[in-house]
Amino acid sequence: MGSAMASNLQAAGHVLTVWNRTPEATEPLVSLGAKAARTADRAAQGEVLCSMLANDAAVRAVFLDSGLLDAMDAGTVHVNHATISVALAEELAAEHEKRGLDYVAAPVFGRPDAAAAAQLNMLVAGKPAAVERVRPVLEAMAIRLWPLGEAPQRATVAKIAGNFMLAAAIESMAEATALTRAHGVSAADFLDVMTQTLFAAPAYQGYGKLIAEQRFKPAGFTLPLGLKDVGLALAAGETARVPLPFAGVLRDSLLEALAGGDAELDWSALSLVAARRAHLDGAG
Amino acid sequence: MGSAMASNLQAAGHVLTVWNRTPEATEPLVSLGAKAARTADRAAQGEVLCSMLANDAAVRAVFLDSGLLDAMDAGTVHVNHATISVALAEELAAEHEKRGLDYVAAPVFGRPDAAAAAQLNMLVAGKPAAVERVRPVLEAMAIRLWPLGEAPQRATVAKIAGNFMLAAAIESMAEATALTRAHGVSAADFLDVMTQTLFAAPAYQGYGKLIAEQRFKPAGFTLPLGLKDVGLALAAGETARVPLPFAGVLRDSLLEALAGGDAELDWSALSLVAARRAHLDGAG
Amino acid sequence: MGSAMASNLQAAGHVLTVWNRTPEATEPLVSLGAKAARTADRAAQGEVLCSMLANDAAVRAVFLDSGLLDAMDAGTVHVNHATISVALAEELAAEHEKRGLDYVAAPVFGRPDAAAAAQLNMLVAGKPAAVERVRPVLEAMAIRLWPLGEAPQRATVAKIAGNFMLAAAIESMAEATALTRAHGVSAADFLDVMTQTLFAAPAYQGYGKLIAEQRFKPAGFTLPLGLKDVGLALAAGETARVPLPFAGVLRDSLLEALAGGDAELDWSALSLVAARRAHLDGAG
Amino acid sequence: MGSAMASNLQAAGHVLTVWNRTPEATEPLVSLGAKAARTADRAAQGEVLCSMLANDAAVRAVFLDSGLLDAMDAGTVHVNHATISVALAEELAAEHEKRGLDYVAAPVFGRPDAAAAAQLNMLVAGKPAAVERVRPVLEAMAIRLWPLGEAPQRATVAKIAGNFMLAAAIESMAEATALTRAHGVSAADFLDVMTQTLFAAPAYQGYGKLIAEQRFKPAGFTLPLGLKDVGLALAAGETARVPLPFAGVLRDSLLEALAGGDAELDWSALSLVAARRAHLDGAG
Repeated sequence: MGSAMASNLQAAGHVLTVWNRTPEATEPLVSLGAKAARTADRAAQGEVLCSMLANDAAVRAVFLDSGLLDAMDAGTVHVNHATISVALAEELAAEHEKRGLDYVAAPVFGRPDAAAAAQLNMLVAGKPAAVERVRPVLEAMAIRLWPLGEAPQRATVAKIAGNFMLAAAIESMAEATALTRAHGVSAADFLDVMTQTLFAAPAYQGYGKLIAEQRFKPAGFTLPLGLKDVGLALAAGETARVPLPFAGVLRDSLLEALAGGDAELDWSALSLVAARRAHLDGAG
Repeated sequence: MGSAMASNLQAAGHVLTVWNRTPEATEPLVSLGAKAARTADRAAQGEVLCSMLANDAAVRAVFLDSGLLDAMDAGTVHVNHATISVALAEELAAEHEKRGLDYVAAPVFGRPDAAAAAQLNMLVAGKPAAVERVRPVLEAMAIRLWPLGEAPQRATVAKIAGNFMLAAAIESMAEATALTRAHGVSAADFLDVMTQTLFAAPAYQGYGKLIAEQRFKPAGFTLPLGLKDVGLALAAGETARVPLPFAGVLRDSLLEALAGGDAELDWSALSLVAARRAHLDGAG
Repeated sequence: MGSAMASNLQAAGHVLTVWNRTPEATEPLVSLGAKAARTADRAAQGEVLCSMLANDAAVRAVFLDSGLLDAMDAGTVHVNHATISVALAEELAAEHEKRGLDYVAAPVFGRPDAAAAAQLNMLVAGKPAAVERVRPVLEAMAIRLWPLGEAPQRATVAKIAGNFMLAAAIESMAEATALTRAHGVSAADFLDVMTQTLFAAPAYQGYGKLIAEQRFKPAGFTLPLGLKDVGLALAAGETARVPLPFAGVLRDSLLEALAGGDAELDWSALSLVAARRAHLDGAG
Repeated sequence: MGSAMASNLQAAGHVLTVWNRTPEATEPLVSLGAKAARTADRAAQGEVLCSMLANDAAVRAVFLDSGLLDAMDAGTVHVNHATISVALAEELAAEHEKRGLDYVAAPVFGRPDAAAAAQLNMLVAGKPAAVERVRPVLEAMAIRLWPLGEAPQRATVAKIAGNFMLAAAIESMAEATALTRAHGVSAADFLDVMTQTLFAAPAYQGYGKLIAEQRFKPAGFTLPLGLKDVGLALAAGETARVPLPFAGVLRDSLLEALAGGDAELDWSALSLVAARRAHLDGAG
């Protein structure tokens, strides 16, 4: 994901210094002219630092535990594209502020192919001046920027809530198709109607197709990643005292899928869980 | 709803005899040339009988308890557009069969304005010959027919499952916006992103707008109707032993809304329940 | 259940006329001196009519649809021991009232062996004068009467709520033991602690033993009966607009058990569902 | 809690060196002859170290982050009475093992008054030799020891699962009484029956009384502590892939109570949440 995004920056004429925890991952970018940094802090010396790390632990390790923030020049803008917890987003905002660094949260909706085509929808939150400075960088990677205000965690919570809505859409199709199948209507026939009418949207059409075809490999987004993201929603809800009953159901369905050993499947495999509970046969 | 559908039949040149439990409701159709029947059985003497009644109780009263089916001519096709229970759909199919009557289930997706514009999406299940005979009638009311096989209850269960998906979409937006609002992002800002990107579909755009604007009156579809339809999903699940955890959550949220006295609100007012649980302020 | 209760009446010296939908079921009572009635209305000619039928449908068929109530003498007290819906309890109360008949609801907690030993806990609601008249009859069957006021449905709802608490106790042990087993503590070891300390009560000790020993046959109370009773709680909640999230979970767990074909098992087999979801091995 | 437990050790003739993060808390023990340590590591020089800290963060701070474990003598047995996460229990077991220290988990069921009276039920897991060495110490504080095997986390998970069962018992009474109240039966009348019959156990009688009397202050165990403990169950379930639908419901109910600002109330105030959802009046 990060590589695809960076290649668009390069294509737009930006000069890149790149770093990855797995150095080989940067080779394609280097072959196109990017400079490879041997350590993260060397990649943090430019005007803008874009980071795309896997989760809270990786972000914490690279930015907070390593001392990287202390090594950055005041005035540098850090743009964080990762989906992290609201709590960490708030902590990062404070830690950057303390050091005179600008921090912009810019999580994205879109799969790797959308990233490669610079078609990401990018949620953006940060101080207006900082956002303005990085706008050309962001626009090189996105089909559209969605400004969400000044506090970076606002973009973070919107991304988390959006992923929760995706998970809920999947579970809703999973349960609905278990119901129709039990009464003789295949998932394909039913979802064909729904995703061409009331639910004619990318989220439903994409996952609906996977559910109808029971095609869960290769995964676009695995069940453990789904569990992580539903966990971020639950954690954000816990901090702010927001009950989320659908998220609780999703957590249990994802755990049940994982208990069955399906860690490598796409999270649309939630439909297998719903079908198993009703003891339906394997085929759609 | 029924009037809007009937007016399209009339516009297409079909000769109508109409009946309604509230006789005045047929006046607009009569003024355009329809014949008003004083009793239901007189409206059932044509080649095709289209019925659109409110719920199981009404369908049972009119067709089973009254003896109407016994009064119909063999060969008549009864097209039932109502959203009823799977159990009643099966019972009706058997009762028609027994009397040599054809029975086609043809429930619709679409609000009254879509009905008036002949833009309904119509799910159709019944014996092929019967469906063929009534096709011109159905096409006069629908933008598209979606064939779902021979057993009438197949169209019924698909309609029920579709309404369940609508309810789940609303609850998913209700919880997601409670979460974003608690962290500083308004429902309007958040839903603006989602309904123009991953969830750019009629279901989300329509209900998303109502949630963002907190505009629950006048209702397009009231909370008690929502409870009725989620109840149909739960009942269909119970018959076929299909657990539906999202439907259980929906049931409780709808009951909570109704306990608060909001029976006249649109079912998108589920967002009020999610906000109240988090003790968020009234405004979006 | 009914036979066991009736035999205590007989033992207490009451003169019985008995009727059962399956005539042979009355033979043991007849051999001890009871008079067998060929029809239900002949069994309804005494001072007190005690009925113990399986469910709403049976009660409705025998008392309302058959005209039995019309055949009863004003002044007769009907004591209904069955667990029925709150809605039917209210309807029965009204129908008796209309005919000048006294109606007392007296559902019981206790298994058949408790019934045989006259050890039932009996919830009692009805007009004080009627309750006083039947007190000697009730006391012959119960270890204790629990008066709950004048409106018969009050005893009914208390019985339904009590059965819901039993189901919740079972599910709570089912989930707790799935959790401990997954971390190496057997259901037997864990429940041994709990049911001798904080949960040293008949409900937990009885069902805890069945769960620890995975002994679900022969059933004391089957899964379908559990589903019926949780359904009565959900229905009573729906009427009065009371959300019951635990009941929703119970409904789904019971359906999942039944989807697996376990209709003849005791409802403590909910523990199998919790274990299967976590993909634990069969043995405790 | 810790003081009450320690005073029983003192009463049994054990020589104590005591430490608390708030030094004044040790004064009563010191006045009875205990030696006060100025730092935690000085309290860790005896044969047996009993610790009772509030939560994971406190245990981690005192034992892992501070270097205390490194300062302890090989052969010392550390008995941890705190309710902590299964993950931390496993980590602690490994860290002790690595340093040749014995580690026994001995969490307890019982309120402070039970602790003062040496009436705690103590779950015990650890290597047999270590458990034998500390047995006289444990017996001085407990009414009974419940051995759960060698791996310390086994006692931890049993304690977590037990607290989950308590929470479920409270929610079950909360929902059941909302249902009965809505149909005219007070919580007091209903719980009076249940807690003297099927649920005649300390957990139900204690919390049932608080619910019936709506007496939530002063709290024996606050809502935030309940949320913490349900969180431990959910976390233990997540690690081992065990879905826990009741725990998800509990989490949401606790959050809803806390969103309403009831942080200082006893967790039996879950009954307020159930009643509010049904819009019942305040009084039982």
